[in-house]
Amino acid sequence: MEIARINDRILPLTEVPPQFLDRGLFFGDGVYEVLRSCRGRIFALEEHLARFERSAAEIRIPQVDITSIRSQVLEAFEQAGFENAKIYFHLTRGSHLRDHLPCDGLRPNFLLTVQALHDEPRKKQEGIRVSTHPDWRWKRCDIKSLNLLPNILARMDADRKRCTEALLVNEAGLITEGAGSAFFAVDGSEKTLYTHPLGPAILPSITRAVVLQIAPDAGLRPVEEAITPKRAAEMDELFIAVTTKDIIPVVELDGRPIGSGRPGACTRALMDRFLDRYSEGH
Amino acid sequence: MEIARINDRILPLTEVPPQFLDRGLFFGDGVYEVLRSCRGRIFALEEHLARFERSAAEIRIPQVDITSIRSQVLEAFEQAGFENAKIYFHLTRGSHLRDHLPCDGLRPNFLLTVQALHDEPRKKQEGIRVSTHPDWRWKRCDIKSLNLLPNILARMDADRKRCTEALLVNEAGLITEGAGSAFFAVDGSEKTLYTHPLGPAILPSITRAVVLQIAPDAGLRPVEEAITPKRAAEMDELFIAVTTKDIIPVVELDGRPIGSGRPGACTRALMDRFLDRYSEGH
Repeated sequence: MEIARINDRILPLTEVPPQFLDRGLFFGDGVYEVLRSCRGRIFALEEHLARFERSAAEIRIPQVDITSIRSQVLEAFEQAGFENAKIYFHLTRGSHLRDHLPCDGLRPNFLLTVQALHDEPRKKQEGIRVSTHPDWRWKRCDIKSLNLLPNILARMDADRKRCTEALLVNEAGLITEGAGSAFFAVDGSEKTLYTHPLGPAILPSITRAVVLQIAPDAGLRPVEEAITPKRAAEMDELFIAVTTKDIIPVVELDGRPIGSGRPGACTRALMDRFLDRYSEGH
Repeated sequence: MEIARINDRILPLTEVPPQFLDRGLFFGDGVYEVLRSCRGRIFALEEHLARFERSAAEIRIPQVDITSIRSQVLEAFEQAGFENAKIYFHLTRGSHLRDHLPCDGLRPNFLLTVQALHDEPRKKQEGIRVSTHPDWRWKRCDIKSLNLLPNILARMDADRKRCTEALLVNEAGLITEGAGSAFFAVDGSEKTLYTHPLGPAILPSITRAVVLQIAPDAGLRPVEEAITPKRAAEMDELFIAVTTKDIIPVVELDGRPIGSGRPGACTRALMDRFLDRYSEGH
């Protein structure tokens, strides 16, 4: 008889609940999004939904109903009742006995969570330490998929080095982005803001797009060009940006202080301007 | 209140069953193995367990008890009672609310299945068609992890081209391996057998190792050197090798017939020799 063992329990394979046969679990065969709300409004909902729709299309999960997902997000957000919430959702191709090739008629599995989002004022005020790690990720980082093991391994490595985030360095020796964030560098004399260009090597981060939009308001000219860790260490200011935390200053890279070793003026100006964007309900 | 939605069901986040919060599902944060038995004996059990132990160590899942896993595999295999069985198992880092950085004290989740394994004599006799696809995988393919989306996408692409397997081609234009198999090419005049060298770019396939061992018995000299699709198309014979199917001849690559367009003599000799290895209970 075909059987399964789930932790300490043995049962007939036909009786295994579908969640244990999720292609998300077997293969990471799914896509996800993370949203936040600020003061009762979800930030950049449509941008996240559009990216999600694209991710699903790129991995050919058919007939994703974005209208229905929007309703589910809004309904759950309202029901949870948090002013500042973190909303996560993923969609996998469906559940079936394990086979690389998906069979016909699979029904996607959807999971959504709404949690209270707590700001981390200390990290924003004092900045964080980051370390570098080889960018081991796949060649389609523009797809926000559930294949996140390389990100996890980089993050665990950073944690062992008492750092909050890992900057990923590709084979050309250039920083692509953080393990879970976009990465920016400020050249104070040039008044430029460097970040890796869009393409398959990085996630089309929505927070990154907002930072590029507001950069001129902080007197910075955006330059979409990747830099090396060596050059990054010589920059005046560094910061990361991610939906759940917006902008966080980086004050140390691989053990070396950045600039004055304190969050810089341009970064702080961008942080202030970012808060305005929340009020504008972007 | 923190809540979750699982497909059509809304519930408090604290009541979500742990299988929906598996790091295997959120991140593909786990490793796996596939074994087969032939005529009542599991093939190369120790080699698979050793590879599994290494995969788990590489992603730093702590304290994996291989002795216990061996017992669980053997017990389930016996209980299922198949002469020819396919045994799959995976171990994830554990279940918790989603956070990239794993918290302390996680208990790994284990899933094992035993299914009847049916040989595919037609594919062995007639050979299969394969197509090429860019190798989009991560840079640590030597780790047998649950991050398999690039393999799935390549396989789906092959299927749309009415092919059984995708050969993955790296940025240097060289074939690394199949989406779910090792890849070999026979130069009949040189009497050589080409395959990609071991390293982070491919899985240390156990079937591949056996093929390299038995190659001299079929009069072939193994050469661990990658080749281009163009060179592959000019070879006398091609085949793939994978635990659940051992050796399968490849008779067409990207629509062009290989050699005579029929399984070749060297491949058939290797297939016969492989069957002997099963009898030897390797």
